[in-house]
Amino acid sequence: MLKIALSGCSGRMGRVISDIVSSRDGMEIAVGFDIRTEQYADFPIYKDFAEYQGDCDVVIDFSNAALTERLLDYCEARRLPVVICTTGHSAEQLDRIRAASASIPVFRSGNMSIGINLMSELLKKSASVLGDKYDVEIIEKHHNQKLDAPSGTAIMLADAVASALPYKAEYVYDRHERREKRPAHEIGISAVRGGTIVGEHSVLFCGRDEIIEIKHTALSREVFAVGAVDAAEYMATRTQSGMYDMNDVIASR
Amino acid sequence: MLKIALSGCSGRMGRVISDIVSSRDGMEIAVGFDIRTEQYADFPIYKDFAEYQGDCDVVIDFSNAALTERLLDYCEARRLPVVICTTGHSAEQLDRIRAASASIPVFRSGNMSIGINLMSELLKKSASVLGDKYDVEIIEKHHNQKLDAPSGTAIMLADAVASALPYKAEYVYDRHERREKRPAHEIGISAVRGGTIVGEHSVLFCGRDEIIEIKHTALSREVFAVGAVDAAEYMATRTQSGMYDMNDVIASR
Amino acid sequence: MLKIALSGCSGRMGRVISDIVSSRDGMEIAVGFDIRTEQYADFPIYKDFAEYQGDCDVVIDFSNAALTERLLDYCEARRLPVVICTTGHSAEQLDRIRAASASIPVFRSGNMSIGINLMSELLKKSASVLGDKYDVEIIEKHHNQKLDAPSGTAIMLADAVASALPYKAEYVYDRHERREKRPAHEIGISAVRGGTIVGEHSVLFCGRDEIIEIKHTALSREVFAVGAVDAAEYMATRTQSGMYDMNDVIASR
Amino acid sequence: MLKIALSGCSGRMGRVISDIVSSRDGMEIAVGFDIRTEQYADFPIYKDFAEYQGDCDVVIDFSNAALTERLLDYCEARRLPVVICTTGHSAEQLDRIRAASASIPVFRSGNMSIGINLMSELLKKSASVLGDKYDVEIIEKHHNQKLDAPSGTAIMLADAVASALPYKAEYVYDRHERREKRPAHEIGISAVRGGTIVGEHSVLFCGRDEIIEIKHTALSREVFAVGAVDAAEYMATRTQSGMYDMNDVIASR
Repeated sequence: MLKIALSGCSGRMGRVISDIVSSRDGMEIAVGFDIRTEQYADFPIYKDFAEYQGDCDVVIDFSNAALTERLLDYCEARRLPVVICTTGHSAEQLDRIRAASASIPVFRSGNMSIGINLMSELLKKSASVLGDKYDVEIIEKHHNQKLDAPSGTAIMLADAVASALPYKAEYVYDRHERREKRPAHEIGISAVRGGTIVGEHSVLFCGRDEIIEIKHTALSREVFAVGAVDAAEYMATRTQSGMYDMNDVIASR
Repeated sequence: MLKIALSGCSGRMGRVISDIVSSRDGMEIAVGFDIRTEQYADFPIYKDFAEYQGDCDVVIDFSNAALTERLLDYCEARRLPVVICTTGHSAEQLDRIRAASASIPVFRSGNMSIGINLMSELLKKSASVLGDKYDVEIIEKHHNQKLDAPSGTAIMLADAVASALPYKAEYVYDRHERREKRPAHEIGISAVRGGTIVGEHSVLFCGRDEIIEIKHTALSREVFAVGAVDAAEYMATRTQSGMYDMNDVIASR
Repeated sequence: MLKIALSGCSGRMGRVISDIVSSRDGMEIAVGFDIRTEQYADFPIYKDFAEYQGDCDVVIDFSNAALTERLLDYCEARRLPVVICTTGHSAEQLDRIRAASASIPVFRSGNMSIGINLMSELLKKSASVLGDKYDVEIIEKHHNQKLDAPSGTAIMLADAVASALPYKAEYVYDRHERREKRPAHEIGISAVRGGTIVGEHSVLFCGRDEIIEIKHTALSREVFAVGAVDAAEYMATRTQSGMYDMNDVIASR
Repeated sequence: MLKIALSGCSGRMGRVISDIVSSRDGMEIAVGFDIRTEQYADFPIYKDFAEYQGDCDVVIDFSNAALTERLLDYCEARRLPVVICTTGHSAEQLDRIRAASASIPVFRSGNMSIGINLMSELLKKSASVLGDKYDVEIIEKHHNQKLDAPSGTAIMLADAVASALPYKAEYVYDRHERREKRPAHEIGISAVRGGTIVGEHSVLFCGRDEIIEIKHTALSREVFAVGAVDAAEYMATRTQSGMYDMNDVIASR
């Protein structure tokens, strides 16, 4: 039985993690840490890491970047692999994370969704096979409250495609002001905004009389919690210190 | 049996018309007109309108704008309804078309696809029902040889939506240079270009936790021939002179 | 300012209603009714209808079928229009609802989503225009916990299409055991089941070289709350007693 | 300059091949073979293989299974790699093909589309990464004249997924006669039939709050000609005798 310590267990994402873990065989939350210690499931919750010295195979952290140092102290002291899901770290905190990876296995990933990371792999393979004979176009859709366009994930996917193309790709966001045939070296990126769409990313490879499309749809932000649990499962058996990310999880399968 | 005269019968679209008509019950091509008179189906082909004075209920014209005057002379003399599918008319030719509509029923439509015209109707209904609580976004896809973006059809569909909205819509083609929440009065229009895509138009109404999408896909340019045959079927029974278009065909059903 | 009384205000859907109403101009929740009276927004909550005799224009009910009788007594006594969103009524309760509609305006709809009801209208129009020359196919997608297939909504949409077709349609759920061309009078209905998909319904009209697709995607069950608020807005100004449903809301726009 | 000999050059697919080759740099049709020897492009056309002993790097065959023996005699005698695109070979002809592969490089593939073959690779990778936590569903769409359902390609793709899953998958074609939650080991396969749809294959991996979709759309049957030219380009540089297929082309990129 894989035993998980869950830091930030009482927040929205912590509760989703608890729900996902309880739905899977062979794993359990052994302990939770949070300033809100009201118990909501069958594991104990402590305010402070020091209060728990029991069994544990891996730590998932969905608490707060401000706690990262104390979290890493705890993990190093007990030689525990750790999955860091918090964001917005300062330069000092990032240094501390790197330092920790010298002695323990540390997981941190730009995008926590296993689907998006898999998609990124599939895109590289597709671009290298289809090469310069297919036009690449990306369409992403998000809710009307999102400030930036295109999404960071769309750029990440475009970069994945571009890295495997035999030409230097140029990203194009608008075509309405020019009048010309589509240049072959472009990657068109369209951003659709509306309603409460959680997140859709579609990449098209358009060739002569065929289209290959790879598309990811997120139905809620809980998908990041699923990725965290997958990462924890993978990290629990790492014996080598170092930095790990979602590509390692995918490569291991 | 509905009898059709087909002007421009030996060109690509003329042959498609002939094929569609032969697949439908209750109609036939009675005669074809073309400079290429080699017979390819079971109807006679003449170089000149004057050579045929037999039975006929309606004329479909897929020949050339240069022949429009002589075509209309023929139709007026015989009081025949006519479906004009040629494009690129001069101002004089357009005047001649309008003049003809004083004495005979004349069909001419911006877009010959019955599907696109129906879509236009559905969009108006949707916009009036969903009103100002749904964000409208349009995505169109075409082949990489197309010069303009967005397509004229995309603008036509945007106009149809805008005509039924309770606010003045602003068309937006690019969002990557600003950083803000989506303004409610926008209609986003994205143009995707790649490979040999014939033509796709999708309109999304994005509300709180629901999306209504209306989408048209053209699989080949032959879809315009289908629309011409539908128009001919409708026009053959018009007794009132005047200008008709695809909206009349749709309203009649 | 439209004043809404919200019965069942403390449940999940009641809270969503409260959230939607507060995001719209010109309306407010004047009072809530629930056995859980802990106040969560700026309106008072009472256990019993009798406790509130203040102003009110319409009642939305998301409580429980068991309360329907007392709810209708209250509405009748105060001559208030009511939007009934509870389900699972007994024959007696349904009789009581019909009886109430003799003296007050009563709203009740098979599907509370305005999008699905609009789609139903669009499908009828499409079927009557496209007639017998387009093949109709329906694809619906839902989560893996759903017991029935196809969904009730898919059947409702198929019925809407069928009601406007010039032939008697036959619903077909499986084609793998036969070997033949598609008969023209079929409506194919495919049910996809997977993961946590909330609900997608797509209807295709497939003609010669063109496809018209109308698609509804629900992103969460909250979409029914949006429909309830739309219905309340419409019902608040009804002066005629009788039964109303979502088609009346759509027809009024 | 890669020199291609094109057997069956005057048929529909032969002409498409000629068109594709002329649009690509670094390759040309050096000679064509066909019973119809009327020249339509800038290469000579002969009735019989024996009439051409000039330069050539690879042979593409879109003629007829009946000619396979003489084709292979020619290729063996000149030690030429060959891309066989004809279908419907007899057992003897298949034996002859295998025998030829002992002395020359012979290409033959179940599906000539590079997109479908790439998709097959992507599906195996996806299934191995996503494993047993995602439900797999396949939807294919074809025209209304197609006799079989699901398509052979859909089954090929299902087999590709199934080969990489950690459980034994069961293919399910219909769910309307049962009432139960979706069993995890199923692969649902839905066949949509309508109009003139050339061919669409979509595979969905549906997980907790995310969907990964891989989709292939064929816009015309010419896509097989594109695959043949890609195969010829690859085969022209093979020095090892043996059987090759589209997976080898993909693996080489």
